[in-house]
Amino acid sequence: MQKEDVINTAFEIVAYSGDARSNLLLALNKAQAGKFDEVDALVEEAKKSLADAHRAQTTMLTSEARGENVDITFITVHAQDHLMTTLLLKDIIGTLLDVYRRN
Amino acid sequence: MQKEDVINTAFEIVAYSGDARSNLLLALNKAQAGKFDEVDALVEEAKKSLADAHRAQTTMLTSEARGENVDITFITVHAQDHLMTTLLLKDIIGTLLDVYRRN
Amino acid sequence: MQKEDVINTAFEIVAYSGDARSNLLLALNKAQAGKFDEVDALVEEAKKSLADAHRAQTTMLTSEARGENVDITFITVHAQDHLMTTLLLKDIIGTLLDVYRRN
Repeated sequence: MQKEDVINTAFEIVAYSGDARSNLLLALNKAQAGKFDEVDALVEEAKKSLADAHRAQTTMLTSEARGENVDITFITVHAQDHLMTTLLLKDIIGTLLDVYRRN
Repeated sequence: MQKEDVINTAFEIVAYSGDARSNLLLALNKAQAGKFDEVDALVEEAKKSLADAHRAQTTMLTSEARGENVDITFITVHAQDHLMTTLLLKDIIGTLLDVYRRN
Repeated sequence: MQKEDVINTAFEIVAYSGDARSNLLLALNKAQAGKFDEVDALVEEAKKSLADAHRAQTTMLTSEARGENVDITFITVHAQDHLMTTLLLKDIIGTLLDVYRRN
């Protein structure tokens, strides 16, 4: 991949992950306020954005695995951090929402 | 470290962290289903895998600190993300399990 | 940025993020023990350390965006992981504390 493509893909990952994270945190706020009917749509929306971000990351991982040089810069590291921390949030969102559903 | 060793270590970290993460998320599922007797063994198993992953990461950090060149590639960044997000999950698993224990 | 500056900044990020994480996890312990009056100060302290760490990371991101070469080494990747996982912990600390406040 060209350096420019790598950087564009990194910004894409940051944008998609950021959208997902905002929606997941908003779902928590809604649950805290007892507005459970608004929660599911926000979580679904977040999962779609994360699927897009994941796809972009996989493109870079497979390029490298094929032997192509994928330049690692500060922004590519940052993009992966954004994605991976938001994937963790997605993995535990059910439990976090249960805090409010069970009380 | 040779590039090949760095990449092998990265895959090792991904595998150990992945095992740990699966066991921690399974522990949450068990707790949600009220099967508390199965939770502790899963968390212990996860901690062992994380200790192995942590050891592999430390090998790379100390090599670099000694002045050796440790090639940073996409997969090494990915491996560290896997480990560090799963370490966060480990740090908060007690609170997440308390969601179910207290209800 | 000179390589030495990059490495010093990375260690700064690890130190600030580590302080923040310790205080956030301690806040959880205090809440679990019912000592709610000690929680807020710990969370505030953590937010200050995270702001310092965030500032250091932004310095590196903007240097790179200006076209400067920012050497990515194992420790810079590690530092960003520390910061980004602790930022996630900060984002969900309110919900985690609610586990104990609501029970």
